[in-house]
Amino acid sequence: MSWVALLDYGSVLIFALTGALVASRAQLDPIGFIFIAALTAIGGGTVRDVLLDRNPIFWIGDPLYLAVAAGAAITVFFTAHLLESRLRTLVWLDSFALAIAVAAGAGVALNLGQPAPVVIVMGMITGCMGGLMRDVVVGDVPVVLKQGELYVSAAFAGALAAWVARDVFALAFPALAIGAGATWSLRAGSLAFGWSLPVYKSRPPRS
Amino acid sequence: MSWVALLDYGSVLIFALTGALVASRAQLDPIGFIFIAALTAIGGGTVRDVLLDRNPIFWIGDPLYLAVAAGAAITVFFTAHLLESRLRTLVWLDSFALAIAVAAGAGVALNLGQPAPVVIVMGMITGCMGGLMRDVVVGDVPVVLKQGELYVSAAFAGALAAWVARDVFALAFPALAIGAGATWSLRAGSLAFGWSLPVYKSRPPRS
Amino acid sequence: MSWVALLDYGSVLIFALTGALVASRAQLDPIGFIFIAALTAIGGGTVRDVLLDRNPIFWIGDPLYLAVAAGAAITVFFTAHLLESRLRTLVWLDSFALAIAVAAGAGVALNLGQPAPVVIVMGMITGCMGGLMRDVVVGDVPVVLKQGELYVSAAFAGALAAWVARDVFALAFPALAIGAGATWSLRAGSLAFGWSLPVYKSRPPRS
Repeated sequence: MSWVALLDYGSVLIFALTGALVASRAQLDPIGFIFIAALTAIGGGTVRDVLLDRNPIFWIGDPLYLAVAAGAAITVFFTAHLLESRLRTLVWLDSFALAIAVAAGAGVALNLGQPAPVVIVMGMITGCMGGLMRDVVVGDVPVVLKQGELYVSAAFAGALAAWVARDVFALAFPALAIGAGATWSLRAGSLAFGWSLPVYKSRPPRS
Repeated sequence: MSWVALLDYGSVLIFALTGALVASRAQLDPIGFIFIAALTAIGGGTVRDVLLDRNPIFWIGDPLYLAVAAGAAITVFFTAHLLESRLRTLVWLDSFALAIAVAAGAGVALNLGQPAPVVIVMGMITGCMGGLMRDVVVGDVPVVLKQGELYVSAAFAGALAAWVARDVFALAFPALAIGAGATWSLRAGSLAFGWSLPVYKSRPPRS
Repeated sequence: MSWVALLDYGSVLIFALTGALVASRAQLDPIGFIFIAALTAIGGGTVRDVLLDRNPIFWIGDPLYLAVAAGAAITVFFTAHLLESRLRTLVWLDSFALAIAVAAGAGVALNLGQPAPVVIVMGMITGCMGGLMRDVVVGDVPVVLKQGELYVSAAFAGALAAWVARDVFALAFPALAIGAGATWSLRAGSLAFGWSLPVYKSRPPRS
């Protein structure tokens, strides 16, 4: 199995867990859990594959991805009540899924020989779109829009790091590991220590 | 005309009626009716065709689908005030559209020789995505998320039934009819008799 | 550069400005500005290209589009506080972006020799989808749904005008200019003078 496929499996699994946790907050039935979990898990990679005209889409070529998402959803349906804080678990799982998916998206674009802007955008899309779809469908404020948190910015930095590292090492694995590591470090630093970029203020401080 | 194309026409017509009813609740103008009706009517099948890389997309190859959706929208614009309950009509029409679209989606995937998980997911996507887009765009709670109702579950069961029936009968029409029938029976049972699956409860009853 | 590519550049630039203005209202950070600006700027054309199976998608074939969107976003991040009314600026910029994007969408479909309904729908999709995605993601009421305003209707009329003009003149540029002009005139008339189509009333006046 290629590194990129392994990353896709990892992000599908973890994003599916986050989708199922959101389904638990919406009190859905088991098929509802699977629906939201699968949408979250395969959403970003599906948009990536459609845009890059990959054929077949990754989960159509290998439906095992769907089984992974469904299994994760059912597991959460029966175990979520054991968690101390579902919201906290959701946010941290989402940070891992984001990091892995950014690397998977950048890796696919790198393998296709795409130029840097496309590599970076595909990393961001693969990382952010699944969670965005999950949040829009259930009516939550999309996590990509949370003020004062690094999310899209972490994805951007990680995808950029993956592209730079690939140029330096000319090897796929270290580049993707660096991309995932950079994304996760920034996202985790934002969650744990409040790292953020300055946000737009409509009334800037007087100079 | 193939059975699948006939099912596509049927689901386009009925989903367009539901979209136009939603437009009437949002008090849009006639072009707004056509917009929401067309989005609902062709949304699910469009996602299906993009994912399966069918070319052209069904309504680009045969723009008559668009005319059907537009005609349905205009008809509703001038007649919706005659209905006793627009919401009740909407919910029941939606159940028929769901059933027919699930069969159409599964039928397309079966014709392409896709494996069971892809057949089932394409049935669910074709059935659920149009209504999901309609509800997200107008800001309603998506009907796929209604607690204590069978919707995604009905689509899942119907698509599964279509796949099993195709395996048993090796004939397209009975399989698709069984898929549509199973979907509609479950959805209608949920609407009329409150059939549902157990939903996730954060505090499970003590045993 | 073809007329259609020029229109795509124009609509990407102006839609990116509108996306960044929406990001300023949501008080995002600079990468958040770029994200919403790019989603708005390339969203409609991306849907058009995916549906028409154009390969590559316009901004994957020429990543300069992404640079234009990012540059517009950063410019707005540093200058939006100079505007007297960001909402007013947003609405008027959006009217120009709509007009140009409708022409770009219709132009692509005309170049591919698509029939009239597909030309019109592609004009409408390219014009309306980017703004629709922008509004759905940030949780605003989509501008396409604003009651008593011409928006989708202006896009429809402009795309229709482009198609008729192409038939009359058999030349691309005048047809696209007429399409953009018709769209903008109707949208601007709606904003400035309240032009509208009759909307659906659940209780029609007694005759």
